[in-house]
Amino acid sequence: MYQKCIVITSQLWILSRLFVKSRLVQFVNLAPLMEPKLGIVAGGGELPRKLASACIDNGREFLILALEGQTNKRMIESFPYKTIRMGDVGKGIKFLRDAQVIELVFAGSIKRPSLRELKLDAWALKKAALLGLKWIGDDSILSKLIQALEGEGFSVIGPDDILSNCIASPGTYGKNFPTDEQEADIKHGLRVARVVGELDIGQAAVVQQGIVLGVEGIDGTDALIRRCTPLQRSGLGAILIKTCKPQQERRIDLPVIGVDTIKTLVQSKFSGVVIEAGRAIVLDKNELTGIADQSGVFVMAVEF
Amino acid sequence: MYQKCIVITSQLWILSRLFVKSRLVQFVNLAPLMEPKLGIVAGGGELPRKLASACIDNGREFLILALEGQTNKRMIESFPYKTIRMGDVGKGIKFLRDAQVIELVFAGSIKRPSLRELKLDAWALKKAALLGLKWIGDDSILSKLIQALEGEGFSVIGPDDILSNCIASPGTYGKNFPTDEQEADIKHGLRVARVVGELDIGQAAVVQQGIVLGVEGIDGTDALIRRCTPLQRSGLGAILIKTCKPQQERRIDLPVIGVDTIKTLVQSKFSGVVIEAGRAIVLDKNELTGIADQSGVFVMAVEF
Repeated sequence: MYQKCIVITSQLWILSRLFVKSRLVQFVNLAPLMEPKLGIVAGGGELPRKLASACIDNGREFLILALEGQTNKRMIESFPYKTIRMGDVGKGIKFLRDAQVIELVFAGSIKRPSLRELKLDAWALKKAALLGLKWIGDDSILSKLIQALEGEGFSVIGPDDILSNCIASPGTYGKNFPTDEQEADIKHGLRVARVVGELDIGQAAVVQQGIVLGVEGIDGTDALIRRCTPLQRSGLGAILIKTCKPQQERRIDLPVIGVDTIKTLVQSKFSGVVIEAGRAIVLDKNELTGIADQSGVFVMAVEF
Repeated sequence: MYQKCIVITSQLWILSRLFVKSRLVQFVNLAPLMEPKLGIVAGGGELPRKLASACIDNGREFLILALEGQTNKRMIESFPYKTIRMGDVGKGIKFLRDAQVIELVFAGSIKRPSLRELKLDAWALKKAALLGLKWIGDDSILSKLIQALEGEGFSVIGPDDILSNCIASPGTYGKNFPTDEQEADIKHGLRVARVVGELDIGQAAVVQQGIVLGVEGIDGTDALIRRCTPLQRSGLGAILIKTCKPQQERRIDLPVIGVDTIKTLVQSKFSGVVIEAGRAIVLDKNELTGIADQSGVFVMAVEF
């Protein structure tokens, strides 16, 4: 019976590959027996390495597509990877096809380049014209990019599909908690971050003692932390609040916190970080909790 | 008749000074014959100097109260002034009283200090306790400060009361205009700046080619321009949009643009600046227009 199941599954798999361009593959559930090869499109941070490790742990084939100027090479150099310029989308697609990649996952933060830096190749220019991507850098490009890639026969999944045990669950990580006054700050900060997200400005806000020190622009969260650090008042340090934009394409750019995040917060004399339960990824939970406990920083996921 | 009028006015004036603490002075209109001595509480930028010049032009007595770490000494050193620490509010009030100042005007941007930097004196601590100023730095402190100063017998006026011909009128200054696409950016930017103001985050936003590059936090407009400069894409440069917070105490912190603003925008390769008609001060209009025309930067005041 089991044997027969595998044969049928294999036949289905071959069939699904033939129809991959018409996206029939989405209706054929082959996991966990034969997961297709995964292409990890790697931005910055720790996430690409984590996904690669998860693939190794699960015996899944994968390839990393590192983006010039975005991916931290140190993080991925021990895995199979190829580097391309962000504008060379056509070349990237060809590389992934040649390597028989079916599923794609976008992992890690992407610094938005200028159009000049991008130097779009023929594929990207054609798609940009077709999809009306007038302004590269607009957040809507992300969902349009997914559409275009699915049109090319790839299936795009979210990092949380692979790291499902890393999705933030409600509550605090570790033994540190915000004070009552900080609870009020968090409430205000969540509202601010959400509005700032709705306006497609950024995902994060920094609050301290009732004051919003700053909100994220396209400069990103690290830059936000850097510029808010010297703006802090004495007393309890600032709180970083990071939410999802309501309209956000969840398969790309889900907030991620990890050990490095906590270390940055400690260095910056922040008092804590708040993320949304179910809408953020927490990497290396145990190590992260250990560092948070030692340093007095609170890490909190709230339902919002 | 004229002589008599002066005598009566002088008597009224002496009377009004006796009742100044009960704020009767507000009902005695002595202008323009005998305007009371003006205290200019000076923040950064060109505004303090402009107000001092306007006083000289109108033959009005004045004194500048320069704030340590805020006022640009070069701007005011040719006028009568005294420097105090921002926290020494009681000392400042005594100084103004001794100098027989009746009306006060707040001029120029104030960088918000931390509580530690402030080191509030006895007067300020008492008022802070009475007025519930839990968090110095909150915007509401400004209107509370005005209340407190009026309780001390001063009348607080806005810079636009003195520089009424400097209030921004609708339209463009000079010959440069935004493009149709930039008009859409401006519309979006105004909406963003207004929401960011409502949330008491800041007054300004920077937009370019459909993208919000950043919004002002408590770091201020100059810092916003600095951090958005390298985030610009190629093509038409970014636009600075500066609005009033809807809840703003207009007598303090009305947006001001001047020659220096335009020079900063030119250096930063911005394409223009948008302010609110009737809710911003434009200094040195002719010189500003000349520089804007030469450099291709547009300056626009919109009704909003």
